Amino acid sequence: MSRIDGRTPEQLRPVTIERGWSKHAEGSVLVSFGDTKVLCTASFTEGVPRWRKGSGEGWVTAEYSMLPRSTNTRGDRESVRGRIGGRTHEISRLIGRSLRAVIDYKALGENTVVLDCDVLQADGGTRTAAITGAYVALADAVTWAQRKKLVRTGRQPLTGTVAAVSVGIVDGTPLLDLCYEEDVRAETDMNVVCTGDGRFVEVQGTAEAEPFDRKELNALLDLATGGCADLAALQRTALDDTAPTT
Amino acid sequence: MSRIDGRTPEQLRPVTIERGWSKHAEGSVLVSFGDTKVLCTASFTEGVPRWRKGSGEGWVTAEYSMLPRSTNTRGDRESVRGRIGGRTHEISRLIGRSLRAVIDYKALGENTVVLDCDVLQADGGTRTAAITGAYVALADAVTWAQRKKLVRTGRQPLTGTVAAVSVGIVDGTPLLDLCYEEDVRAETDMNVVCTGDGRFVEVQGTAEAEPFDRKELNALLDLATGGCADLAALQRTALDDTAPTT
Amino acid sequence: MSRIDGRTPEQLRPVTIERGWSKHAEGSVLVSFGDTKVLCTASFTEGVPRWRKGSGEGWVTAEYSMLPRSTNTRGDRESVRGRIGGRTHEISRLIGRSLRAVIDYKALGENTVVLDCDVLQADGGTRTAAITGAYVALADAVTWAQRKKLVRTGRQPLTGTVAAVSVGIVDGTPLLDLCYEEDVRAETDMNVVCTGDGRFVEVQGTAEAEPFDRKELNALLDLATGGCADLAALQRTALDDTAPTT
Amino acid sequence: MSRIDGRTPEQLRPVTIERGWSKHAEGSVLVSFGDTKVLCTASFTEGVPRWRKGSGEGWVTAEYSMLPRSTNTRGDRESVRGRIGGRTHEISRLIGRSLRAVIDYKALGENTVVLDCDVLQADGGTRTAAITGAYVALADAVTWAQRKKLVRTGRQPLTGTVAAVSVGIVDGTPLLDLCYEEDVRAETDMNVVCTGDGRFVEVQGTAEAEPFDRKELNALLDLATGGCADLAALQRTALDDTAPTT
Amino acid sequence: MSRIDGRTPEQLRPVTIERGWSKHAEGSVLVSFGDTKVLCTASFTEGVPRWRKGSGEGWVTAEYSMLPRSTNTRGDRESVRGRIGGRTHEISRLIGRSLRAVIDYKALGENTVVLDCDVLQADGGTRTAAITGAYVALADAVTWAQRKKLVRTGRQPLTGTVAAVSVGIVDGTPLLDLCYEEDVRAETDMNVVCTGDGRFVEVQGTAEAEPFDRKELNALLDLATGGCADLAALQRTALDDTAPTT
Amino acid sequence: MSRIDGRTPEQLRPVTIERGWSKHAEGSVLVSFGDTKVLCTASFTEGVPRWRKGSGEGWVTAEYSMLPRSTNTRGDRESVRGRIGGRTHEISRLIGRSLRAVIDYKALGENTVVLDCDVLQADGGTRTAAITGAYVALADAVTWAQRKKLVRTGRQPLTGTVAAVSVGIVDGTPLLDLCYEEDVRAETDMNVVCTGDGRFVEVQGTAEAEPFDRKELNALLDLATGGCADLAALQRTALDDTAPTT
Repeated sequence: MSRIDGRTPEQLRPVTIERGWSKHAEGSVLVSFGDTKVLCTASFTEGVPRWRKGSGEGWVTAEYSMLPRSTNTRGDRESVRGRIGGRTHEISRLIGRSLRAVIDYKALGENTVVLDCDVLQADGGTRTAAITGAYVALADAVTWAQRKKLVRTGRQPLTGTVAAVSVGIVDGTPLLDLCYEEDVRAETDMNVVCTGDGRFVEVQGTAEAEPFDRKELNALLDLATGGCADLAALQRTALDDTAPTT
Repeated sequence: MSRIDGRTPEQLRPVTIERGWSKHAEGSVLVSFGDTKVLCTASFTEGVPRWRKGSGEGWVTAEYSMLPRSTNTRGDRESVRGRIGGRTHEISRLIGRSLRAVIDYKALGENTVVLDCDVLQADGGTRTAAITGAYVALADAVTWAQRKKLVRTGRQPLTGTVAAVSVGIVDGTPLLDLCYEEDVRAETDMNVVCTGDGRFVEVQGTAEAEPFDRKELNALLDLATGGCADLAALQRTALDDTAPTT
Repeated sequence: MSRIDGRTPEQLRPVTIERGWSKHAEGSVLVSFGDTKVLCTASFTEGVPRWRKGSGEGWVTAEYSMLPRSTNTRGDRESVRGRIGGRTHEISRLIGRSLRAVIDYKALGENTVVLDCDVLQADGGTRTAAITGAYVALADAVTWAQRKKLVRTGRQPLTGTVAAVSVGIVDGTPLLDLCYEEDVRAETDMNVVCTGDGRFVEVQGTAEAEPFDRKELNALLDLATGGCADLAALQRTALDDTAPTT
Repeated sequence: MSRIDGRTPEQLRPVTIERGWSKHAEGSVLVSFGDTKVLCTASFTEGVPRWRKGSGEGWVTAEYSMLPRSTNTRGDRESVRGRIGGRTHEISRLIGRSLRAVIDYKALGENTVVLDCDVLQADGGTRTAAITGAYVALADAVTWAQRKKLVRTGRQPLTGTVAAVSVGIVDGTPLLDLCYEEDVRAETDMNVVCTGDGRFVEVQGTAEAEPFDRKELNALLDLATGGCADLAALQRTALDDTAPTT
Repeated sequence: MSRIDGRTPEQLRPVTIERGWSKHAEGSVLVSFGDTKVLCTASFTEGVPRWRKGSGEGWVTAEYSMLPRSTNTRGDRESVRGRIGGRTHEISRLIGRSLRAVIDYKALGENTVVLDCDVLQADGGTRTAAITGAYVALADAVTWAQRKKLVRTGRQPLTGTVAAVSVGIVDGTPLLDLCYEEDVRAETDMNVVCTGDGRFVEVQGTAEAEPFDRKELNALLDLATGGCADLAALQRTALDDTAPTT
Repeated sequence: MSRIDGRTPEQLRPVTIERGWSKHAEGSVLVSFGDTKVLCTASFTEGVPRWRKGSGEGWVTAEYSMLPRSTNTRGDRESVRGRIGGRTHEISRLIGRSLRAVIDYKALGENTVVLDCDVLQADGGTRTAAITGAYVALADAVTWAQRKKLVRTGRQPLTGTVAAVSVGIVDGTPLLDLCYEEDVRAETDMNVVCTGDGRFVEVQGTAEAEPFDRKELNALLDLATGGCADLAALQRTALDDTAPTT
């Protein structure tokens, strides 16, 4: 079976990771998974939230949002509605948890990094692109802080890398990295977050139409593990380039 | 290894499912998983939300909430804070999706069922208890509507049963149905929603401390599948009792 | 004239006061006035709100809420609407004032007790049941604090007891403790809060249809005073039982 | 005992009722009880809220608010805080109920009158001044609608008059129409709303310090009844003047 | 061309500035520009917002609001809607900036003055009346603080006076101080804030229908400069009267 | 005097107008004024807001927002704070008014265009860049609608072009198109919106430090008029390119 855009089932869309996109942020990445484009900025600030003061440990958190016309039909702004929707909350929490999985709080010291992931254009997989891009922005912010001597040396705040990808079953076939059209038609939909060494940080599978069995689950996990490995390689390549000087 | 409360790793806490708890709701269940107690009410109303009008199809949705002192320390009311937190949103959405997985919208007709799951006392696993209890309340509400001739006969709105359980790895051992103390210490935490025939509706695994590997994931899925089968049997028993007359 | 449920005009509905309902709260009571069931928890915390710091005096406050399906038709959650309605505010304030009437702030010391009164099932008189049950939960929380040496000995923080009942004129007859059906038909509706020694803490009478005269007002006050005395006796009996060990 | 401002216990403060204060509103009154000044406007509009459409009946409602510097210390605006406080809600509801007690909904027809009571300067008794002034504004709005043929003739929408006054026990003495300084020192505080023929619409008594007994309650009711009769006379006088032409 | 109310194009409406309107505020003015009436109160408090602490400098800010029935049709209260509209925000900010233009923060010391401008009746030009009246209230509050020795002597916190007026082009003719009817018909609308020595603090011109050219802009600026000079003279006269004793 | 970035006083920063930036929107432009980058999307929908239905006329509105890390220090999201700030409101309204100045509502028919202007990176002049870019996005959306036959032919909905620029006095010298560093130091700050034929749509001048006189105002208007003419030429050039095919 050939996919809408001609990919094989286990193929990612073209992925680009553009570092140093913003002149203000300590780390910033414009990541694209095909037509999905997410601007990820990492803001490093000294100090931590009140509940963590005096612990000697840092904090990492994330906020996700979609521009009103990043989608095919314009959505209302959450600032105008005066409240954040459940989906936005859910994804912001997922991104934060995913990045915290590779942070050594002690090594970060009492500093905070906020990852803002703003979807400029959406075509499926916005949360997985956000996690993948946010990791690179976070790595740049940590490097920036090390250069500025804002984190102690001798211990690396990042304990590994993290990337994410969506998988799903469309017309009975497990597919990697769904675009919007595939996502809409998927019977089962799964988002998987892996570390660079191939272990799981998050596994979230949902039956959109029919419940799925263990065999299907296994097929999806295999696909996702492979996709995350590919993304980890792309992250490494992006970070191997000369660090952007903010 | 013996657990805090003396259970074996693959043992559920004592589960009770008390039907007909409320005199007003079309279906109502007080479910307990050990010391976790959730009041689940199903409100059946004719008509559907605006975006679904004229479709001939029904709708099922859920709202989850914790009483302020259901936990060890009192939490602020979300009504007083003026906004619903991310965790509440996330769980409400999960419960709704889980129940919709066993609903035939056409058979339900243009009717809506709202499941309210209010946690009266929390000791871990509130979302899984809520799903398990809400299914029974939903079944009672559907039966009520059938008796009142509010849904068409000849086609059953419920296409199966659904139950949920938490699993996690504590001190290296996979455990079923974590109580709060175990949940706090878990390295990995997973919530699994299964249909009565043993397929998956939702799989949500999170590495709380260390990322987990495929072998650990498989052990957790095995445990969860067994636990959901036990819960499905308890649901059947509860529903076999004479239907409560509201 | 016989009432809907066979009571005489000056008769309370069956009242139950179940202490120690919650394993977490310092005091907790499930109170029922007939089919009206309210869960009252008392949360004792050291410290007082900012405006009272350094005064050497404590604080007692209350929050009232109804579960969405505690009533015959489902009501929207105030957390979802994002704002608390006028009726909820009004009743929360009434409960707080009523309990503060029997508190010696100095004897309580710089500690706070929050009473949460959540209506699980409503059939008229939810605010009066809440006050009556909350008093018992408060008494248990104070006892708990005394055992824990969190309040100074030698001076009792509670200066008396407090209970509340509704009265109303239905079809020209003054009735005690209205159930929902009677409440809807009442021409005049009054809530009365009394101390155990028969004095008034609050008197709130409202003409729902026709204004009422002094004679009717007197008849209602007589009924209410009797009802509150009966409730005070029930509170004493409940508190005479061995204290629940939280 | 002589009062702060030299009044006798059963004496009202100087009361002025200035009609036609606003050029826009269908009825408008600047009412003062001593230094308490409330601007009451009555806005008459054709049509009723959705839940009342087709009933042939009208609706009357009220909104109360204090200007930020109407009090001795500036209060935050509720619009800036983004939510209405409990006290504001409570008083708005009281004013609305009080005026609805003298409205014949059928005679009003499917029209709505909104009473806005904005406190320009506060010195105790703002809610009772608001009710007393709002009645006059309502009467003018009804007259306006009759002249404009917006309400059917032959049946008077107003079935009587309504006025309100505060009473309280200060240093053991029952006093009428408390100013702010007296109100702060009152042991018991009561607001009473009466019709022009001397019956009660609302009776709200609160023990601020000590609970009060039946004898004290009776003394307060006597005072209040007299005060309301005086206010009813002042309302009649104000309305006897040539109607303001809006 | 004669105007609706018989004025010449360069003529202000009758302006009154009534000082000492409120017994509570440190400065208070009821200002009227024709039928536009705005109550301006100045609240002086020691201390400054957190971000200014320790700077040795004071702060001046303003809040503007319209009573619901100050206009021809009743508007919803912003407190009820739960959010402040854009227009309100815009005008509050304009008033604050205008007054800060004549404040020497150092001379004011670490004190704050809040100007509340509440429109009691609107007939065009509410923001310009508010600025003109608020200046006088501010001057009275500063004098009050000087008398109370709350600001250091030797240096005057007010560096000048400030007044504002609207101008517009109606049917091709530039007019000063538009009333509501003229405002609605204006092709171009401009609000100008000037200091007493004739310089500009704010110039805000908007093409309501046709864009305007440089010549029209110049004509409007000429008119506005004249109007502001007239208002400055009226402010001086008002302030020359014996200061009100609060 | 040479400017921070070497420009002459009357020189714009490098301006780029990149059309067709988004695959979803009917018109979309990434506009940059130096380091200020704003993504402007135009969403065309059939139908108008309720208050305009049946008028035969269309509507154009705008929403402005800044990404949290578009600035040097991260700002809180307005969606998280739950309310839109005054500055955001003010700028959204300004953009909307500016574009409506060149719209023929009748020719647009009962259709709505929403302009979303999201600042991706800020370095002064975000509102003027937004207006300048939004005009081009609007023009593309109108062309799109004409191609789709959604607007009637024979009459052009756009009656002209519109662009905006900031001017200010820095160290006594009037400068065009201030970058952030200049803006912070400006004594007077003005935003001017002009049509392509050189007339004014909006003139908003504010004295940040010292009030300004007529001569300074004239110098600023001269500069702004020239800058807007340059921008109009750049808009024409951008629109002369082959229309992007959405």
